[in-house]
Amino acid sequence: MAERTIQLVLHYDGARFAGWQRQPKERTVQGVLEETLSRLCDAPTPVVGAGRTDAGVHARGQAAGTVVPGTWEAAGLRRALNALLPDDIWVASAHEMHPDFHARYSATGRRYRYFVGIDDEAHSPFRRTHEWAYRRDLDAPALQSAARSVEGDHCFRAFAVKGTAHVRDDHRCVVRRASWAEGRGVLTFEIEANRFLHHMVRFLVGTMLEIGSGRLDAGAIGRLLAADDNLAVPAPAPAHALFLEHVEYPRELYLA
Amino acid sequence: MAERTIQLVLHYDGARFAGWQRQPKERTVQGVLEETLSRLCDAPTPVVGAGRTDAGVHARGQAAGTVVPGTWEAAGLRRALNALLPDDIWVASAHEMHPDFHARYSATGRRYRYFVGIDDEAHSPFRRTHEWAYRRDLDAPALQSAARSVEGDHCFRAFAVKGTAHVRDDHRCVVRRASWAEGRGVLTFEIEANRFLHHMVRFLVGTMLEIGSGRLDAGAIGRLLAADDNLAVPAPAPAHALFLEHVEYPRELYLA
Repeated sequence: MAERTIQLVLHYDGARFAGWQRQPKERTVQGVLEETLSRLCDAPTPVVGAGRTDAGVHARGQAAGTVVPGTWEAAGLRRALNALLPDDIWVASAHEMHPDFHARYSATGRRYRYFVGIDDEAHSPFRRTHEWAYRRDLDAPALQSAARSVEGDHCFRAFAVKGTAHVRDDHRCVVRRASWAEGRGVLTFEIEANRFLHHMVRFLVGTMLEIGSGRLDAGAIGRLLAADDNLAVPAPAPAHALFLEHVEYPRELYLA
Repeated sequence: MAERTIQLVLHYDGARFAGWQRQPKERTVQGVLEETLSRLCDAPTPVVGAGRTDAGVHARGQAAGTVVPGTWEAAGLRRALNALLPDDIWVASAHEMHPDFHARYSATGRRYRYFVGIDDEAHSPFRRTHEWAYRRDLDAPALQSAARSVEGDHCFRAFAVKGTAHVRDDHRCVVRRASWAEGRGVLTFEIEANRFLHHMVRFLVGTMLEIGSGRLDAGAIGRLLAADDNLAVPAPAPAHALFLEHVEYPRELYLA
């Protein structure tokens, strides 16, 4: 067999990465992965990610695709990568895929979680690295209703980074589920959609927390969804509390 | 009021500290705390810790004592410290204490936890920093029975660092509770005693895991408790999965 198409499911701690995407002089997840894979395959080996997470954003289910010599089986490649990769990246699983698999274009859904610490202990060193210690009285029903209002097929132009060049249709996302859950001093926002725009989850969380803390009224989400630009959107929530949790692909792309 | 005696309850991530105890050229928890307190009090301000945790050991309930000018109330001192301390130390609470309070000598009990990751995901960057990824088949009943056998009043000389100078009686510890619990791919060892010897929890965990993985028989703990030295003890478990969780003091030492 000449080549194999492999999907890698990745965990990484975003703290010491300048995000996913390869950059000339920065330490990035894609850069470190490509370097390690190229050593193992003895040839330049590009990696495609399902989502280009920002600097500081974590993953517990990022998916990446690569094509390797047929001598590398998925399980062996995973073991070799985990032996060589630095401590802040880990390959949770590896699967051989149909040659048509493309980590970005084949993905049918992504799920993110955002963690907001609302008790005093959210400032502890064991939590502050992965939660946003917010500690304001938040109106939980208002948060929940704001989350519900982004469910469905909407134009999310208002919740995307300013100046991102897109054709008009490119701002449409189908949000299958968006909700808040509370437990142990943490409010967790979970959102699943077919796709996400750049910074979209962080803009959504920033806006919902403004609503939950009473500085914005409940209608703000609806007005932003109807807006033609992102001029009225509140600041995005910080990156360090966001996790890419899962990427979904059609079952038929998995071999064996 | 001339001075106040304050107890600080501390969380710290041990990863970037050379342990608790002040050392000339190393970054230590005591060193960072004393430096910060001395700035706030405008005078050299020593800090005494309940336990001198090793390099890499974490705390979610270390207790420290200090004496500050009477103008500093406990709550205000806590706020000021948390504003100035680096991200890997956090003052969870501060209490004004009776002048007789001494963080080490007044403590009547300490509780530690040790986390052993036994599923594949223990290698994830979100767990490997605070769990020992062990991943061998462990005999849970054998671990539990080994833990129970250290409960009570014993000489723990065999489970202390070699060459630690102590008078004979100094190796006695009263272990009030020692047990293992399993949940979500993690085995947690919890031990509470009046006091601990240097490296004692790590030696106990190292030995129990040898028993749990079948490389040592169930009688090993008994033989080590009867030994006059530490020559037969297995290697200590690594520091990064150990947490000092709580230090106990007599209620009457707390003011107000």
